[in-house]
Amino acid sequence: MNENILGIIAGVLTSVSMIPQLLKVLKEKNADDLSWVMILILISGLSLWVWYGFLKNELPIILSNAFAVMVNIILLICCMIYKNK
Amino acid sequence: MNENILGIIAGVLTSVSMIPQLLKVLKEKNADDLSWVMILILISGLSLWVWYGFLKNELPIILSNAFAVMVNIILLICCMIYKNK
Repeated sequence: MNENILGIIAGVLTSVSMIPQLLKVLKEKNADDLSWVMILILISGLSLWVWYGFLKNELPIILSNAFAVMVNIILLICCMIYKNK
Repeated sequence: MNENILGIIAGVLTSVSMIPQLLKVLKEKNADDLSWVMILILISGLSLWVWYGFLKNELPIILSNAFAVMVNIILLICCMIYKNK
């Protein structure tokens, strides 16, 4: 299989699997199950993957990790908003 | 920075961020917050990333996604065991 197509399918699947968590937090306005320390560690790791993707010039890695960074930044914001309640 | 070192650091960070979820489920013997459909989608995506890593011959991608597959298989098993209770 073409490597890029494989990478894009892999990226879509791993990205899709993050959506329900995000929707659940947004819908219930409750982020008690999430740890902001872990989200920060995850965002750092995902950002390094984006950097890695740029160095290796691999679009599937850049796109899927950039999407994951975005989802986790929203989760982090939810954590900060909802935990103060 | 050397690409492989960057990839390994990125992989360690994203792997570390999965451990608390796993420990929480194992400790509380409760997997109600997890969806086995989503875990299956995630395992499929991560497995394709491992395959992608092999095609591109990139060790950081292979190792970090193989670790993630392992963690999610354990989560899937927990889901099946604890949800029947």
